[in-house]
Amino acid sequence: MKGHTGVILRVNLSTGKVARENLKENLARDFVGGRGVNSKILYDELKPGIDPLGPENKIIIGAGPCNGTLVPGSQRFTVSSKSPVTGILGDSNSGASFGVELKYAGYDVIIIEGQAKKPVYLHIDDDNVEIRPASHMWGKSTRETDRALVQEFDDPDACVISIGIGGENLVRFANLVNDLGRGQGRTGQGAVFGSKKLKAIAVRGSEGVKVADVKALHDAVWETHKAWNNNPDFKQARADFGPGMGWLRYETTGMLPTRNYQSGLFHKSMLEGLDRYFVKQKAGFSCPNGCDHLFVVSEGPFAGSYGCGVELANLGDFGPKIGCDDMEIAFKASELCDQYGVDYFDMTSIIAYAMECFQRGIITEKDTDGLTLEWGDADAILGLIELTARKEGIGKVFAKGMAEAAKVIGRDSEKYMMHSKGQSLVMREPRASKGWALAYAVSTRGPCHVRAHLPETYPADNWDTAVQGIIAKYNDPTNHLIEEGKGELVAWHENLQAFKNSLEICLFSLYTWMFSVPNMLARFYNAVTGFSIDEKDVLKIGERIINIERAFNAREGFGREHDTLPERMLKEPMPDGPAKGQVVNLDAMLDDYYEIRGWDKNTGIPTREKLLELGLDDAAKDVA
Amino acid sequence: MKGHTGVILRVNLSTGKVARENLKENLARDFVGGRGVNSKILYDELKPGIDPLGPENKIIIGAGPCNGTLVPGSQRFTVSSKSPVTGILGDSNSGASFGVELKYAGYDVIIIEGQAKKPVYLHIDDDNVEIRPASHMWGKSTRETDRALVQEFDDPDACVISIGIGGENLVRFANLVNDLGRGQGRTGQGAVFGSKKLKAIAVRGSEGVKVADVKALHDAVWETHKAWNNNPDFKQARADFGPGMGWLRYETTGMLPTRNYQSGLFHKSMLEGLDRYFVKQKAGFSCPNGCDHLFVVSEGPFAGSYGCGVELANLGDFGPKIGCDDMEIAFKASELCDQYGVDYFDMTSIIAYAMECFQRGIITEKDTDGLTLEWGDADAILGLIELTARKEGIGKVFAKGMAEAAKVIGRDSEKYMMHSKGQSLVMREPRASKGWALAYAVSTRGPCHVRAHLPETYPADNWDTAVQGIIAKYNDPTNHLIEEGKGELVAWHENLQAFKNSLEICLFSLYTWMFSVPNMLARFYNAVTGFSIDEKDVLKIGERIINIERAFNAREGFGREHDTLPERMLKEPMPDGPAKGQVVNLDAMLDDYYEIRGWDKNTGIPTREKLLELGLDDAAKDVA
Repeated sequence: MKGHTGVILRVNLSTGKVARENLKENLARDFVGGRGVNSKILYDELKPGIDPLGPENKIIIGAGPCNGTLVPGSQRFTVSSKSPVTGILGDSNSGASFGVELKYAGYDVIIIEGQAKKPVYLHIDDDNVEIRPASHMWGKSTRETDRALVQEFDDPDACVISIGIGGENLVRFANLVNDLGRGQGRTGQGAVFGSKKLKAIAVRGSEGVKVADVKALHDAVWETHKAWNNNPDFKQARADFGPGMGWLRYETTGMLPTRNYQSGLFHKSMLEGLDRYFVKQKAGFSCPNGCDHLFVVSEGPFAGSYGCGVELANLGDFGPKIGCDDMEIAFKASELCDQYGVDYFDMTSIIAYAMECFQRGIITEKDTDGLTLEWGDADAILGLIELTARKEGIGKVFAKGMAEAAKVIGRDSEKYMMHSKGQSLVMREPRASKGWALAYAVSTRGPCHVRAHLPETYPADNWDTAVQGIIAKYNDPTNHLIEEGKGELVAWHENLQAFKNSLEICLFSLYTWMFSVPNMLARFYNAVTGFSIDEKDVLKIGERIINIERAFNAREGFGREHDTLPERMLKEPMPDGPAKGQVVNLDAMLDDYYEIRGWDKNTGIPTREKLLELGLDDAAKDVA
Repeated sequence: MKGHTGVILRVNLSTGKVARENLKENLARDFVGGRGVNSKILYDELKPGIDPLGPENKIIIGAGPCNGTLVPGSQRFTVSSKSPVTGILGDSNSGASFGVELKYAGYDVIIIEGQAKKPVYLHIDDDNVEIRPASHMWGKSTRETDRALVQEFDDPDACVISIGIGGENLVRFANLVNDLGRGQGRTGQGAVFGSKKLKAIAVRGSEGVKVADVKALHDAVWETHKAWNNNPDFKQARADFGPGMGWLRYETTGMLPTRNYQSGLFHKSMLEGLDRYFVKQKAGFSCPNGCDHLFVVSEGPFAGSYGCGVELANLGDFGPKIGCDDMEIAFKASELCDQYGVDYFDMTSIIAYAMECFQRGIITEKDTDGLTLEWGDADAILGLIELTARKEGIGKVFAKGMAEAAKVIGRDSEKYMMHSKGQSLVMREPRASKGWALAYAVSTRGPCHVRAHLPETYPADNWDTAVQGIIAKYNDPTNHLIEEGKGELVAWHENLQAFKNSLEICLFSLYTWMFSVPNMLARFYNAVTGFSIDEKDVLKIGERIINIERAFNAREGFGREHDTLPERMLKEPMPDGPAKGQVVNLDAMLDDYYEIRGWDKNTGIPTREKLLELGLDDAAKDVA
């Protein structure tokens, strides 16, 4: 039985050395686990200015203290490294049960260093850890790789994360895929794997995890389940549509990015008839909701497509954003991205950009080897994914990532590339949702739907009591079009999420309108680890994590001038829908946000005082 | 919290009346539950000689005492009625979690009487039981029906059994399907549903079940899990191939029915490359094995086919038996059978018969509206399923069931229809497996792979100690070609299975070479119910169940002359393989079997003394 052991597995692919180290207790105490610990290790171990795709970058894979316990949704894990997409701290979080198996095998963190000369994969079977040759798997899809490596174990519970040809070809926004299509999507972790010639990691653990106070854990888990059951409509919507249920709100708020954010309305629901593709609900380890869905397309030109994760990515990014109203194309395209291992969000943003450029005559058939980039066209969508993953034709340009690709295409097209820091926005039209606008601009890993998961369109009276205080201070900050108060709301949610991510609990397992989430997180954390913290500590630890990440980025030369949004969001008024006429007045929100954060307003960099207050003495020294 | 409550839900479709009754305690004590209780109710409540498709037939749906507990594989349930296939007692058993939900809703048995005038379905949501109109679902596939009815609940755990057009059209061997393709395959229960215009039953239960001795249950469960883990190779084979693993043996023993039992060898494994269609292992409620597999065909003409249950039915019946070596055809054909709701075994036996008749010129293109019935031909296979389920063309004849169809086709073709009592054999060439030969002939529901699940090709030293005694009495009865001793072996396994089926535990959850299965069954039964029986009682109760079933059949005029096999098995020596030259000498085995059973050797009917010994006083009176 293995507990919150604090074991680091350090693997050097250049030398082939595998070593075990103890995670220092203060790291676990001050940064929780998962994302938080990863970020601190990156700060401590990476030299500033290194090439994300060079041998000096490191991949940190972190499980959290709750992984493998009964805590609802305790199945996440985070992969971190310096991002080849943004050039700042990169991390990406995914579910299913890789993190659980890692804990069951006895490890909290894997640090991967160096670069292999030939393709390899990492095989972890409890104490047996081997770097094995993977040349025979190079070029295989993530599904083929997953299947082959699970079969090497005697146990279907074995878990695999792998890259497809996207990562192998160093497509900047390549991702990692596990299970039947859970993706470590953002910040190009797949490209970092590819740069190290690391095809996959397969892990299986046969022991349990220790919990400090089983009774306390049981009580907290029970309350969480009850809270879900007290919200039958919400539970049902999640079961019916999975994370795609957000659609229900985005349609009515004009928040639905359509044809590369040229509109906020699509006038056609992708949710209708969706259930005919659903085979089974799926749930990650210890998840009470099962909001994932296995889909199969049974008929038509895309018959045989299947996968998991009918999410906003399928419904929105493969839908309205690229002008596509055909779910079967969306399913096929998402399957293709999964099999090649490229991030949905960046890929579809590039497709949307290319289609808008085509619409405006900036890109023509001459540039695309004859592909007609009409909105929603299946050949165009699937063709661009193929070309990009294979780095052929115009795909060679797109594989460079959003920022660089727009530069290469040029011809005044950069304003149509909907990115910040080189990474795409993630659904939710910023002009129709000011909280998300700010959250995208300041996120420590580039635009992101996880760093501050704002429930800003929910009625205020259901919110967490801690948030009620914030709401009372301002003039209706729960309205998604109001900018006042968003700085404090975003900071609060960022702190909360930083802790939750670091526990490695699913984004969707606890909601701020169910009960006091900071309090519940403290109860989970205490019950599992035996520490004794309260809800204020939860938010303080979250703040510490945000600050070390921000300090990492500052060290790379990033500050206020990088906390921005595409020109369209700042200057072009929303053309239609409930948010018609809106732009994002980002500067005022940034001022508020930095002030709340205690960061320098001019530079957007944490002050020495703030860093010292949070016990980040090294970072305080660096910043000075 | 509901326990071994003994609640019968009696639903009359003619009058619309729904009533609750108590299951008499002696019924639970003497017949356990599930199959056993069903059989006794059929004996008590059905008049002899009724039309299986008339209003006097009743459908009995039984859960077992272990359903919904931690007992491994405790997720079966049995549907019983007088069979339109055989004219004798009919029942069929399936898994997933319908039986569990039924118990959680508070019911042990549903009795459905009468006939509705218009299509209906039965909706059971705990105490809320309603007969609802189903005209809008008539004609829908089982998958569509399942999906529609699960959506009516707030809960994806809701379970549905339904018929397709096979049952609606009264195809004699129509079945019930639940989940993604678990079938209540045998004895035409789907046709009985169809005759009552009962499209489906949907059930959801929200309470638990009571267990009398939790500690004792826990210990027994733990031992079972350990026994599985002590057999890693077997466990792995089951995980890799599911119930299809039997193939591994059948190939080497010449037991593999090929081209309608014209050969016992196929010379090509259907297992190779099988895993490329596997998406996920699946497990029924409380199953430690997960031998079910969700498959998807991703490419080629059958892309988009998907379903569950990659079993001998797919691998053998849709394979060698009909001369097909293409798994994708097999998958498509099995999906079609599931969606239309017709039994795999009878359907493929009819296809095999039709193909042999075609081979011999008995059936020609003139009879088939142009279908060329070549072995393994996709159009022929899929076409015959379509025609039969829709009752069109030659399918009108086949829909009458095996015995009747062969009579109608005539022209000396009856010897090519591989049935007994109107029902098909189930894999396993009888001439190469004498135990199975006898088991097919005497099974109380017609040929069947469940009534006596014989592990006769396993090495003797792994067998249950109780069986060791039987083995010691005879000259190598573990050899599958030896006939001596098979009577006692079959009777022993029948008794065991009757009890196990009645507990409603999966066939594959306990094996006689793991430990003493009768002993383990007694432990499960006692722990759950609070009764106190030993392993001898287990076999005695099993014997009682077999005898009441046999008495039911005797009352319908069935006896020794019906306990037979197709002429090919009795007269044509095996042409090839390890069993070359063998025929089944059935009469000698029957003599032994009846003697062991204490039945009249001339008639094959239970004696008055035997029935009285087993406490079956009413049956003893009837027999006299």
